[in-house]
Amino acid sequence: MNRALVRLLQKREPELREREIAYRITGVATRRLGLLADANGMDLSSLGNVHIPASQTFKSPANVREWLREAHADVLFEATSLDPHTGQPAIDHIRAALEMGAHAITANKGPIVHAYDELRSLAAAKGRRFLFESTVMDGAPIFSLFRDSLPAVHLRGFRGILNSTTNVILSSMEAGLNFEQALRRAQEVGVAETDPRHDIDGWDATVKVAALVTVLMGVPIRLEQIEREGIGKLTGEVVRAARAAEKPYKLVCHAKRTSQGVAASVAPEQLPLSDPLAWVAGTSSVVYFETDIFPGLAITETNPGVETTAYGMLADFIRAAAG
Amino acid sequence: MNRALVRLLQKREPELREREIAYRITGVATRRLGLLADANGMDLSSLGNVHIPASQTFKSPANVREWLREAHADVLFEATSLDPHTGQPAIDHIRAALEMGAHAITANKGPIVHAYDELRSLAAAKGRRFLFESTVMDGAPIFSLFRDSLPAVHLRGFRGILNSTTNVILSSMEAGLNFEQALRRAQEVGVAETDPRHDIDGWDATVKVAALVTVLMGVPIRLEQIEREGIGKLTGEVVRAARAAEKPYKLVCHAKRTSQGVAASVAPEQLPLSDPLAWVAGTSSVVYFETDIFPGLAITETNPGVETTAYGMLADFIRAAAG
Repeated sequence: MNRALVRLLQKREPELREREIAYRITGVATRRLGLLADANGMDLSSLGNVHIPASQTFKSPANVREWLREAHADVLFEATSLDPHTGQPAIDHIRAALEMGAHAITANKGPIVHAYDELRSLAAAKGRRFLFESTVMDGAPIFSLFRDSLPAVHLRGFRGILNSTTNVILSSMEAGLNFEQALRRAQEVGVAETDPRHDIDGWDATVKVAALVTVLMGVPIRLEQIEREGIGKLTGEVVRAARAAEKPYKLVCHAKRTSQGVAASVAPEQLPLSDPLAWVAGTSSVVYFETDIFPGLAITETNPGVETTAYGMLADFIRAAAG
Repeated sequence: MNRALVRLLQKREPELREREIAYRITGVATRRLGLLADANGMDLSSLGNVHIPASQTFKSPANVREWLREAHADVLFEATSLDPHTGQPAIDHIRAALEMGAHAITANKGPIVHAYDELRSLAAAKGRRFLFESTVMDGAPIFSLFRDSLPAVHLRGFRGILNSTTNVILSSMEAGLNFEQALRRAQEVGVAETDPRHDIDGWDATVKVAALVTVLMGVPIRLEQIEREGIGKLTGEVVRAARAAEKPYKLVCHAKRTSQGVAASVAPEQLPLSDPLAWVAGTSSVVYFETDIFPGLAITETNPGVETTAYGMLADFIRAAAG
């Protein structure tokens, strides 16, 4: 994803210039390369291919704080993999960046679920932004919609389809595959991760629900408060029979304000064809928001491209740079 | 609508206070009351019922400019009815407000189609805002989405259902009514205007398409450049046969960038049930945007309430006041 971000930053130079935003990349951290920094800027025109030019020698700081310091970082793009149960190491990275006076932009939803209040307060205290548009629906504008475009609106609840992998698997099973074949297909096309359990068992969707509830409804919800059921028990026959009966299965997310707080769930559900969620296929996703002003305001993202997650981070970067 | 706006302003006092926005109503202009102004503020707690307290005596300026001056207006809410062919008198009202240093917020899409560049330049020159979120989809965030939440995204085109009256009429015809009965029903429930020709003939949708193309695609398009066909030729039988064949009629709006500019149309179309537009019923509306980043990003508004158009103006007011 970071390669996609570097490419997108390069492609959007004109739009950034128009906004009087200049940048240089002064640090890179990947599992393969380790921590590299050069406050003068790194010539990474070929980073898109993850080749660091041999002619360049960078400093190799010992830890993330030292790396941020060497890089003189103004903005950190955090894109580690999700650990749904701890939010680490992303939380430590973001905390370090904010404490050192850099904006922190993440595509990892763990920190929202496990440290939203802390990181938001820290960002406010430091006069920096903590932004995370790419964490839900691949960078489609959800958080910014509520923050910037829907002032003085109260969110009562939402329902939606938020996990691509399970949606692709269900579509493939409807088309005739069994569960294992459908999973393999999803891995082959690059939707499912090598270890797909987070998706299959509903964890990915659950963490997204928790992120939306925490940020948009203002209720910090713990993962164990969200009812969770994955799609692992569904067989190809069951899924095809449901589709034939015009009540297809979808992994549906729900959240609703109650007198006690928020009730939320993630579970496979049979939907009538009159329900717009029934028609969300493949990698598409959707959320219907119920607000006090709009009884049903939905954002749908069909067939997201490879750039959408990177775009969410670019959009956050522009927001952070605009101040 | 202005009554709804006054009520909503009152209801959202806490949210406005939280944003340090204070206001007083210093002028009112309606067909029945004429022009009334009092720079000290008007006690219109009962304006919701369009009763001006008899104890209050207001100045009655002779024209709109004098009225704005008497009112010491900082913000004008413009909500006259649409004249699709001239955009008047809304354009004159907005021009007057901006020239006198007031923000101009309109729910009338005529000015965008007939004077967008002029009014936008005038607003910029005066350091004021010209905002119009309520002109398309009843105040659902469309313009603000692209302006504030989708930086550096390029819009290639869109398709959608943007006129409630025709959509309600088509739904009623599918349910068994003929065209005249369906129109009467739409008028009874307050969706269709007394003179419904703007809706039936596709003018309302055409003006909305022109507004979206002009603002979001940056291409000023004239109404006569948009292919337009209304629903007046559709009979109940034809509409019901189409629904029975699972290819229901919808009044569909299209716009697409071409080498020459933008090609746009409004016309009844038979849609397969696999098309999400086929399921948009009654007063709901939807736009699918095709951008260079998001191949399909849709905003859907289901069953808008009475407050949604007023909300669009309130949201614009908050944006203008925030500076």
